[in-house]
Amino acid sequence: MTAAELRPVGWVRSPVADPSDAVRQGDEGAPDVVVELDPSVAAAAADLHPGDELLLLTWFHLADRTTLAVHPRSDTTRPQTGVFATRSPDRPNPIGLHRVRLLRVDGLLLHVSGCEAVDGTPVVDIKPVLGAVDER
Amino acid sequence: MTAAELRPVGWVRSPVADPSDAVRQGDEGAPDVVVELDPSVAAAAADLHPGDELLLLTWFHLADRTTLAVHPRSDTTRPQTGVFATRSPDRPNPIGLHRVRLLRVDGLLLHVSGCEAVDGTPVVDIKPVLGAVDER
Repeated sequence: MTAAELRPVGWVRSPVADPSDAVRQGDEGAPDVVVELDPSVAAAAADLHPGDELLLLTWFHLADRTTLAVHPRSDTTRPQTGVFATRSPDRPNPIGLHRVRLLRVDGLLLHVSGCEAVDGTPVVDIKPVLGAVDER
Repeated sequence: MTAAELRPVGWVRSPVADPSDAVRQGDEGAPDVVVELDPSVAAAAADLHPGDELLLLTWFHLADRTTLAVHPRSDTTRPQTGVFATRSPDRPNPIGLHRVRLLRVDGLLLHVSGCEAVDGTPVVDIKPVLGAVDER
């Protein structure tokens, strides 16, 4: 594989539209958001239930893919750090990883708890949290 | 965004070449593997150090992207389940998520602990584990 095509399975609908207004991580006061699923993947979401802990994988469509090092949390007093040691959205493949709780399912709309992705962010995958793998 | 192009930042070098020989999760006896980085992203990996807990994001290049429901763990006695409630590699965007520990860095080669991805699997991102976000 030299390249692969990522296709959205849904989109984040958030009251936060501007990245400069977004918090940096979902546990820093991010709003509850809605994931609007693409109808073509409805069957893939059939077994998601309120209360589930999920990982949303998003595509930071506004990111700079040429960035290889950043000042962590945009703090210029901190040294430049290779992006693989940070959660910067600016990175070669700007995939976002967000741990959320599913609050409510309303047809193609998944209501989830605190997520820092801005309105319109494409969702590319949804996975269950596996305690043994993700939390050990 | 209607589609985005994912480009490998590296490849898994594993003694396991055949998916039928792979374990299903990294904590089920998967071998240590090497991530061979693409030279173009060397600067992004500059601040990774032995002992770091990392998330490898891979691209399951052998997966079936048309699959929307599976029998969990290929156990046909279990009911078909929408793939977003499973960790099946067969899913619309077959991104793998692997929690590993960095053992050793040797130039462009990252030696990491137990990872179930087979030899040749493209790596698309590397992120640090964030305790507050990933482990709560």
